[in-house]
Amino acid sequence: MLNTGFSVTEFEARVDRAQQLMAEQQLDAIIVSSEKHVEYFAGYRSDLWASPTRPFYLIVPREGLPVAVLPQGADDAWRASSWVEHFTTWPSPRPENEGAAEVAATTKALPRRFGRVGIEMGPESRIGMTLADVFRLIEALKPLEIDDCAMLCRQLRLIKSPAEVAYIRRACGIASDAFDRLPEFVTPGSSEKDVAGRFMASMIAGGASKVPFLAMASGQGGYKTIILRAGDRKLEAGDILAIDTGVDVGGYFSDFDRNYAIGDPGDLARSIYRSLQRATDAGIAAARPGNRASDLFHAQANAIEADGIKPATQGRYGHGLGLTLTEWPSNAAHDDTLLEPGMVLTIEPGIAYGDGLVMVHEENLVITEDGAELLSRRGPPELPVIAW
Amino acid sequence: MLNTGFSVTEFEARVDRAQQLMAEQQLDAIIVSSEKHVEYFAGYRSDLWASPTRPFYLIVPREGLPVAVLPQGADDAWRASSWVEHFTTWPSPRPENEGAAEVAATTKALPRRFGRVGIEMGPESRIGMTLADVFRLIEALKPLEIDDCAMLCRQLRLIKSPAEVAYIRRACGIASDAFDRLPEFVTPGSSEKDVAGRFMASMIAGGASKVPFLAMASGQGGYKTIILRAGDRKLEAGDILAIDTGVDVGGYFSDFDRNYAIGDPGDLARSIYRSLQRATDAGIAAARPGNRASDLFHAQANAIEADGIKPATQGRYGHGLGLTLTEWPSNAAHDDTLLEPGMVLTIEPGIAYGDGLVMVHEENLVITEDGAELLSRRGPPELPVIAW
Repeated sequence: MLNTGFSVTEFEARVDRAQQLMAEQQLDAIIVSSEKHVEYFAGYRSDLWASPTRPFYLIVPREGLPVAVLPQGADDAWRASSWVEHFTTWPSPRPENEGAAEVAATTKALPRRFGRVGIEMGPESRIGMTLADVFRLIEALKPLEIDDCAMLCRQLRLIKSPAEVAYIRRACGIASDAFDRLPEFVTPGSSEKDVAGRFMASMIAGGASKVPFLAMASGQGGYKTIILRAGDRKLEAGDILAIDTGVDVGGYFSDFDRNYAIGDPGDLARSIYRSLQRATDAGIAAARPGNRASDLFHAQANAIEADGIKPATQGRYGHGLGLTLTEWPSNAAHDDTLLEPGMVLTIEPGIAYGDGLVMVHEENLVITEDGAELLSRRGPPELPVIAW
Repeated sequence: MLNTGFSVTEFEARVDRAQQLMAEQQLDAIIVSSEKHVEYFAGYRSDLWASPTRPFYLIVPREGLPVAVLPQGADDAWRASSWVEHFTTWPSPRPENEGAAEVAATTKALPRRFGRVGIEMGPESRIGMTLADVFRLIEALKPLEIDDCAMLCRQLRLIKSPAEVAYIRRACGIASDAFDRLPEFVTPGSSEKDVAGRFMASMIAGGASKVPFLAMASGQGGYKTIILRAGDRKLEAGDILAIDTGVDVGGYFSDFDRNYAIGDPGDLARSIYRSLQRATDAGIAAARPGNRASDLFHAQANAIEADGIKPATQGRYGHGLGLTLTEWPSNAAHDDTLLEPGMVLTIEPGIAYGDGLVMVHEENLVITEDGAELLSRRGPPELPVIAW
């Protein structure tokens, strides 16, 4: 059995759809080097993407089957983890040209119709090779012209298959369970790091493949930012504690946060939390086919404005998620992406209050024909209090 | 207190050394966008690098203090986690130009002497921005010329400070403790994934910030590859089980593996394991100032050859480690990097045997004036057996 989480049929469907889009965009092939896209098309999974020494490349031609270009020695691992049977290798490490020559040669041997190939260039993409090798690759591909394939990959990945949604649902379930148990992890004298360790360990024990994202914030009456790792600060009565986490199950992410009061939070924080829940409900209600990503922004913004309080948007109120912690679209005023069944999104309103404080709440959902189906376990209507 | 793991003095020393190298390479500035280099020079730490939506940039000029270019809204997080006080922001998300314009403008406002700036291009580097933004940046920087700064960063990062080594030592200690407890985690009926979950949870509980790398392999009499994630395979008597893990403490990695027999391994596996230990000892003995990375390769290769068995090199027998799981140099025949005190390396011999099987052993060490100081707890001289 292949050590991928999907059937070969699923991968074939991804390649089929990619090839339709390649024909529309007049591309003879796309070349991907990012972990996410090699995994998306080939199924190959390895933590060795943490090592930048040896890149892995996949070429998806406009017709026929994908071909991989692999560092020598990765043959057996590739065969055990990918449905893609055709590959070529190079002797690695070879710092002066880490596979770019072989990728160019393999691509140039493909049938040509448009004389154009796509590489990952566009919004929110990352390449899995050095920039020097990108320049070598572009030069060696000549006379083939280069175009972006990130938008093509975006179009494929925006709509998740039921099997993909199942992974995200499991990730959300694991995070929800850990959030339910959070009060057990906060004991007198605990630092942020102590709580983060217990919380993360409970998610690993719960079945998470890993926990690539765990942001924590705490402070008396509230916190100022929610994108940093847990620190050495000791938790105290009167704190608001926020945890935002992205759990990876089979390569797919959950991404949502929860807020807790340690002891009595006072009226202001309770009230801000209630407004956040109203904005979240408004966002969830707007998450249905036919609406746009910008509608999700406005639904949340209007709810916050109706409460006469100050938003903390950071440019958007949520985003897509899937193989990456955050992906397109952005629930932002400028993003008119049409919502369709199979899209997985976060709803993430934020409110500014007090002296530079913010409070953020987040839920995950999948768009269905009938509207939103929540994937995260909906946060409580009142700010939960951890007895101290 | 800043939420970085180092004193401001440490960061100032890094910038000082970078500026000396920039003068030698005739660069007016370097621009970095990778997580590792923003962290190395600025101290900024966040799991939000898992999100490719909003890049973070740092510009280190040839003289004076670094300047950051940040997505709007990240101000408070940056202030809490970086010693770099000067920054500019752009309204993000802005997919059509995610900060490249502001990076170019900030760089062009710096004093010019050489008319050249460095970006991350060379071996083992990765950029933390889209390729489209790289092309925009290069265009907008004109008439400034572009050169590589990855080799400059390599030269800095090759020699770890005592504070950096302390993090790696802690990571190695946490992994060593978990390996010592591994037999508890292997219970009848366990799958690879079950064992991986328990093993990872024990390292998180032990103080790991995270566990970005956990490869597992098992099979009757041996395994074929050691770069894949744990799978659904159930462990059985007669298996050899290998676990390779990279533990992150404060941003710094350990990277070593251990082998176990489940029940009686038989004479062949025991003998291969002993040869691996001899090769490891030979590698450790060769790890001293004045020798080269290639000497580490030959020391291990000669030991394996002396035993009349077949090597499984994958091009090298170990590598540098630090902020990344694997970094320069490679313990390879072609790498003549001179070993110096403060370099942290893995010793990683591999042997091929039986029907396509391999066995790999790995230790971590730091080069001192007197030779190697082990950071991992040396693996046992005989293949450890887990009773079944």
